[in-house]
Amino acid sequence: MGVTAPIIAPHLIKPFMEKNFKLTVAYEGTNFRGWQRQSMGPTIQELLELAVGRVCAHPVTIHGSGRTDAGVHAQGQVASFKTTSPRSPAQILAGANTLLPREIAVIKAEEVDLSFHARFSARGKCYSYDFSSSPVRDPLTLRQAWPVGPNLDWAKLKLCFPFLLGERDFSSFQSKGSEVQSPVRSITHLELSFPGPRLARLYFYATGFLRHMARAITGTLYNVARGQLAPEDLSRILEARDRRQAGLMAPAQGLCLRRVYYEDWPF
Amino acid sequence: MGVTAPIIAPHLIKPFMEKNFKLTVAYEGTNFRGWQRQSMGPTIQELLELAVGRVCAHPVTIHGSGRTDAGVHAQGQVASFKTTSPRSPAQILAGANTLLPREIAVIKAEEVDLSFHARFSARGKCYSYDFSSSPVRDPLTLRQAWPVGPNLDWAKLKLCFPFLLGERDFSSFQSKGSEVQSPVRSITHLELSFPGPRLARLYFYATGFLRHMARAITGTLYNVARGQLAPEDLSRILEARDRRQAGLMAPAQGLCLRRVYYEDWPF
Repeated sequence: MGVTAPIIAPHLIKPFMEKNFKLTVAYEGTNFRGWQRQSMGPTIQELLELAVGRVCAHPVTIHGSGRTDAGVHAQGQVASFKTTSPRSPAQILAGANTLLPREIAVIKAEEVDLSFHARFSARGKCYSYDFSSSPVRDPLTLRQAWPVGPNLDWAKLKLCFPFLLGERDFSSFQSKGSEVQSPVRSITHLELSFPGPRLARLYFYATGFLRHMARAITGTLYNVARGQLAPEDLSRILEARDRRQAGLMAPAQGLCLRRVYYEDWPF
Repeated sequence: MGVTAPIIAPHLIKPFMEKNFKLTVAYEGTNFRGWQRQSMGPTIQELLELAVGRVCAHPVTIHGSGRTDAGVHAQGQVASFKTTSPRSPAQILAGANTLLPREIAVIKAEEVDLSFHARFSARGKCYSYDFSSSPVRDPLTLRQAWPVGPNLDWAKLKLCFPFLLGERDFSSFQSKGSEVQSPVRSITHLELSFPGPRLARLYFYATGFLRHMARAITGTLYNVARGQLAPEDLSRILEARDRRQAGLMAPAQGLCLRRVYYEDWPF
């Protein structure tokens, strides 16, 4: 009888253990066609997959917590992917950052439980929207703020918050082409701050965002702050469940995905 | 005898009255070869002269308060020019901004006394220098901050201030090719602030800046904050009057000309 040698040497088995990684990613979105892989021009997902795939030495599929539009920025987008590569989180972070264009950076890489999924595990998100209230265009913020001039009534804009907070049907603030089934989302917190002279920042905390929702709400709040709509009009707009009832869509460059929350969602 | 008609009709005389204008100019310097007109690529001065010249309908020479290097930004550069055009300050501002690339904006235009000169009338200037202390590169500040990582000792950097304040010979912080006769300048105020998470900002107020002076001082302070030089070394460096004794030159993108002071210089 004797002993039969194993067909696969044991040292070859270990690399095939599947691992799951969570990446926190920042990007300056001006030069990209948004998050999601597509045929027209470079996207964050595509460039990340190319970089991480090279570090892992096999093609990877990277799932984001959600898409961001062309021109939208992120300080804390989250993505996850599975790999059989023996690379450590530190090696993936350093390797990917070497291969990525400088407008994209992996700012954190962690090994996580196999059940984690950047999109399906997400509990909530925070977006910010920056307005430049400079009377003339401000070259130093043009890539990251919407130039709205000095005549916005910020107090009036804040009067809109109660109409938006809570669990609501946001169909009126959703663009066509969304994948999602339900248009119900919860906005749990809204905040307006002034982080610099002639700069206003609106924070949105919500359990999720429909397609173009943050930008459609921002544009409608702008209409209120300009006096073209009243804060009370938001009730009517929400009830109509019709995108045409809402205001304009704010341009992409002011929007930034600040953070995606998982177990740490404070609301 | 009779009356002889004047050779020049009186309505043609008025437009030739010379007027002097002061412009306050902001720019995102990344894509330009600095302030001063030159053969290699677009400069702020050249583009301003083209735009203002078209508005005034004759070629103009625009004098800046001083040059800024390629890649350096400005929030309040000041320039002056003389014109015989009947255009109002508001017309010059609006007209020039229509013709300028969006990275350059005239944020204020004023008619001033004929004796005013953006450079010779200046009493002092404020520059700021931004450092990003993010552990990984930060895509959202890459055009306007120097990524120095998280390990700078900011308290040690501040210990350098007393060595730099006051009227001194700054030859050691001057690059060759300067036009100026005297290397003596007064730094009247230095300030370090932290306007955002992982962002440090150093303000310089001085009666004038030699060529590359703000960047050479910033680079040397960086060397101190990294532990490569001691604060006391600044005495030795200043006394040596030798550029080779100072530290490295900080990159252009962190520097921003905040304001030029005339009669309103507070020191």
